[in-house]
Amino acid sequence: MSSASSILTVGSMAFDTIRTPTGVAESVLGGSVNYFSIAASFFAPVQVVGVVGEDFPSTHLDWLASRQIDVSGIEVALGKTFHWTGSYDGNMNEAKTHSTALNVFESFNPQLQTKHRDSSYLFLANIDPVLQQRVLDQKGTSNLIACDSMNFWITGKLEEVRKTLKRIDVLCINEGESVLLSGQRNLMAAATAIRSMGPSVLIIKRGEYGASLFTDQGIFFAPAFPTQTVVDPTGAGDSFAGAFMGYLAKVGAHRDMAKTEPEKWNAHLRRAVIAGCVMASFTVEDFSVHRLMRLTPEELSSRMDHLLKMMLV
Amino acid sequence: MSSASSILTVGSMAFDTIRTPTGVAESVLGGSVNYFSIAASFFAPVQVVGVVGEDFPSTHLDWLASRQIDVSGIEVALGKTFHWTGSYDGNMNEAKTHSTALNVFESFNPQLQTKHRDSSYLFLANIDPVLQQRVLDQKGTSNLIACDSMNFWITGKLEEVRKTLKRIDVLCINEGESVLLSGQRNLMAAATAIRSMGPSVLIIKRGEYGASLFTDQGIFFAPAFPTQTVVDPTGAGDSFAGAFMGYLAKVGAHRDMAKTEPEKWNAHLRRAVIAGCVMASFTVEDFSVHRLMRLTPEELSSRMDHLLKMMLV
Repeated sequence: MSSASSILTVGSMAFDTIRTPTGVAESVLGGSVNYFSIAASFFAPVQVVGVVGEDFPSTHLDWLASRQIDVSGIEVALGKTFHWTGSYDGNMNEAKTHSTALNVFESFNPQLQTKHRDSSYLFLANIDPVLQQRVLDQKGTSNLIACDSMNFWITGKLEEVRKTLKRIDVLCINEGESVLLSGQRNLMAAATAIRSMGPSVLIIKRGEYGASLFTDQGIFFAPAFPTQTVVDPTGAGDSFAGAFMGYLAKVGAHRDMAKTEPEKWNAHLRRAVIAGCVMASFTVEDFSVHRLMRLTPEELSSRMDHLLKMMLV
Repeated sequence: MSSASSILTVGSMAFDTIRTPTGVAESVLGGSVNYFSIAASFFAPVQVVGVVGEDFPSTHLDWLASRQIDVSGIEVALGKTFHWTGSYDGNMNEAKTHSTALNVFESFNPQLQTKHRDSSYLFLANIDPVLQQRVLDQKGTSNLIACDSMNFWITGKLEEVRKTLKRIDVLCINEGESVLLSGQRNLMAAATAIRSMGPSVLIIKRGEYGASLFTDQGIFFAPAFPTQTVVDPTGAGDSFAGAFMGYLAKVGAHRDMAKTEPEKWNAHLRRAVIAGCVMASFTVEDFSVHRLMRLTPEELSSRMDHLLKMMLV
């Protein structure tokens, strides 16, 4: 696997216990880079840096490795895997956290190997912004760097979040987080404020309403693919990011294109957002990464075509 | 004015007293057919059937008449004009009603003149479904009939709402109403259930997220135009409907096209939804019909082009 064209992602591998209006899932496989890497692997090679405990099933790591996912950066540490417990009531767009057992994730200190430093694309999943900066410190040159965050860090470590934002190209957050980060309820005002903090590309995920993209080339709205079945929204955002980055890696997008080939850059980004919306629509159809694990490239491609038809005027 | 190509609308003219996060407007001009007719008049001739009290400013009726709006069907009755008092707090997508003084609107019993019966398009604004049916009883043949409703009627007169739905082509409601009417929270399930009640075309308005269109030709998602300024959402839905019906009247859309020219029909409906989204985005920029009254065809056309660019992939 060539690391040059591959995507590095750094974040959590986890067990999740989740209650949604459709049922309960106990200690199922979760974690941001789990969702991200499976989604991205439909498009490009992926490298994962993370940590799991001794209780994490090696069969799942083997399964990831059987795709184009390099799991050699996932440390198996003494102790238990990070365990998140949460629920979705009424509003399926926002999870309520019941407990967070960090376990081995508490002392997570990402160490990049040479091949990781050489990766062309980087996705910093939702982790402590201080750790995100440590990854950036270690990273070599890249085509594109994207980043996620969450309310917990925006509220608790705003200055560190701001430092991270100055060093990335793409911020991918949800609507509530965009309001919190910008202090603006109006979408346009929020987008302008956040882009002035650093990221030239901003994606605001709007759950069942889709996603909006803000760049120097303008604004783009992608609808969510309307699924008949919404079982569990967990991981929708991370799999969105996975398909988004995967698509950009596949087409060889580079931040410099914003200036050298703005129309092509714009088209790549818009298609990548569509890929993200479609991937997320599969994720929510089942608990954990179950739907993604049985997703075929044909299904993915067919639903992308279907969504594009729903946007035609 | 030829009544053959014109749009008849039946509903309320009113005074509104509104509080939104940006301010308060006391006894300003409102009413569903007020918003509807101004919006529609950008595209086609409109006829209004309604009732106002002696306190309603004749200057406003004159202003409407100075456009291609026939106000001869608006009765000036002894007494006061319908007065609605409401507010928007936090959630700008749903109004909270504080008081409803029906006044002359309480005994509203729409009487269609010959020219009204001959109109090609009909929009039944949000009034008692029994009255909607009385209008349908009087109406001659038409190209297309659209209808709005609200929670109050869906909850209080469901059987009558259902009778109306069997006799119309297009239902235009908001997301909360679609959930209430169908008993389904899932968008797809709600749309299927509602379309089985009669309307072959269903529009679900989603406030700041845009609108979705469901027909035999598929699903279409239109984003809302992202305005910097949201002063007052009142009338957004009615002006959406006005531009939607106006656009369809302008291009001569007919329900039979669904079978004879399905692709053209589909394209007309999608463009009409875009027109609706754009018109609504102007409406919310000021209280009452103020923004619509100073809107120019050039501004409208320019924003339609702008929104279409935000959907390009």
